[in-house]
Amino acid sequence: MSRNALTFPPSNRTFLEPHLPPTNNPQPNRPFTTLTFATSLDSSLSLAPGTRTTLSGPQSKAMTHYLRSRHDAILIGAGTAVADNPGLNCRLEGVGGYGGEGLTGQPRPIVVDPHARWDFSSERSKILQLAAEGRGRAPFVIIRPDCSPSSSRCALLERCGGKFISLSVDAATGRMPWDGLMECLRREGLRSVMIEGGGSVINSLLEPISAHLVDSVVVTIAPVWLGRGGVVVSPERRRDGDGEPVTAARLRDVRWYPFGEDVVVCGKLSV
Amino acid sequence: MSRNALTFPPSNRTFLEPHLPPTNNPQPNRPFTTLTFATSLDSSLSLAPGTRTTLSGPQSKAMTHYLRSRHDAILIGAGTAVADNPGLNCRLEGVGGYGGEGLTGQPRPIVVDPHARWDFSSERSKILQLAAEGRGRAPFVIIRPDCSPSSSRCALLERCGGKFISLSVDAATGRMPWDGLMECLRREGLRSVMIEGGGSVINSLLEPISAHLVDSVVVTIAPVWLGRGGVVVSPERRRDGDGEPVTAARLRDVRWYPFGEDVVVCGKLSV
Repeated sequence: MSRNALTFPPSNRTFLEPHLPPTNNPQPNRPFTTLTFATSLDSSLSLAPGTRTTLSGPQSKAMTHYLRSRHDAILIGAGTAVADNPGLNCRLEGVGGYGGEGLTGQPRPIVVDPHARWDFSSERSKILQLAAEGRGRAPFVIIRPDCSPSSSRCALLERCGGKFISLSVDAATGRMPWDGLMECLRREGLRSVMIEGGGSVINSLLEPISAHLVDSVVVTIAPVWLGRGGVVVSPERRRDGDGEPVTAARLRDVRWYPFGEDVVVCGKLSV
Repeated sequence: MSRNALTFPPSNRTFLEPHLPPTNNPQPNRPFTTLTFATSLDSSLSLAPGTRTTLSGPQSKAMTHYLRSRHDAILIGAGTAVADNPGLNCRLEGVGGYGGEGLTGQPRPIVVDPHARWDFSSERSKILQLAAEGRGRAPFVIIRPDCSPSSSRCALLERCGGKFISLSVDAATGRMPWDGLMECLRREGLRSVMIEGGGSVINSLLEPISAHLVDSVVVTIAPVWLGRGGVVVSPERRRDGDGEPVTAARLRDVRWYPFGEDVVVCGKLSV
């Protein structure tokens, strides 16, 4: 078996199949999107901002890498790139770099970084190291049009096969619009994207204005409470016409799969 | 079938059996305690303080009433008594008041109300109404020794078979000590107690100082996010010797049971 490779047995793959990108993506203008993350019982992703917390067991880790192998891209926010220095590759046995040919099965890392604050380098950043070693793809970094990275930073990305992509922000909110971003990824040839975090990316996609862009939700819940003060998945408060709070987001077609000590819940967002 | 009675089929009872009070309680000095509640995916009990939110489906509701039939008492905090005006009886088909004899299978409601702020009355309060109708037991209300309810309030409780019980608070914290409270309930002949809420009761019992008093945990999770600002189950932040945040509470011997649209997780608190 290849160095660091993970295995995810076929018996565990069955339950995920209905929740994975279909061979024929029904949406021609955007990728199939899977929102996936692991939380505690108190909906925390990590103990504190900037802290990487191992929540789920080894089976769930292998599942994440299997999911990655089934998507063209993985998307994270700049905060996660800065805080976690993630590898964002796929270590499933048999994919490119882990026993397979070239970069087959390796997803494209997408870092949404409007203000270009992710200070990557070929020495420090795992994503770039893995790309240099042929064990992962180089990242596409999505920035605002008014950000101008230095030519050396552009060259650094381009040398390993990545690039900056500039995308207009919403004039009213100053935020990057999810629909425009998804269309942009589809134009880049990416037919499916797995959205992994962090908290602000997830909470923003759970809001009613974005929920139609989410095709599938796969959440792992670990049987722990991290306690107050963590990075929490909980969308903005929603109110009805009378100002009364109402349920912020709802899953439909829900299936729960006990998985080691954890549970995996799969479904679609009600829109 | 009796008016308003609920049924919980034997096929659904099997998975709960290992998590229920045993016939011979191994703890002679306190009741067997089951901590049980329903949350959203973002660990909210309700949309806002004072708002009663229906989270889980009809199956889970029937499960709650089955659990109630298997405990001698149900405990809630005063906040929940005030906000929800709960009935706290058992409506399972076949218990007393619902097809059964006398009050067989009806748990004793316990309201932890140090400052005697639950303003019950025979007209307004569902607990007292049900007791008057022979469809539930009258409550025991736990108050501080320095609270002196009027004789008319004492008489009101006593007429339907309830009473005030005064219990010393912890001198250092001013809080009612859980261990003393549990010993008190055992002296009242109660061999098992189901602790249902609200948020501050649950969070306080999940803290390391109280966790040894919890014998069983049964949490129902509904596939919705209520959104920020709800009443959240998340214990106080815990830190290690270096001041770093660590996991606040952990379940062991965990079992997950998909149950309709919801999941039920059962386990014990790691202490």
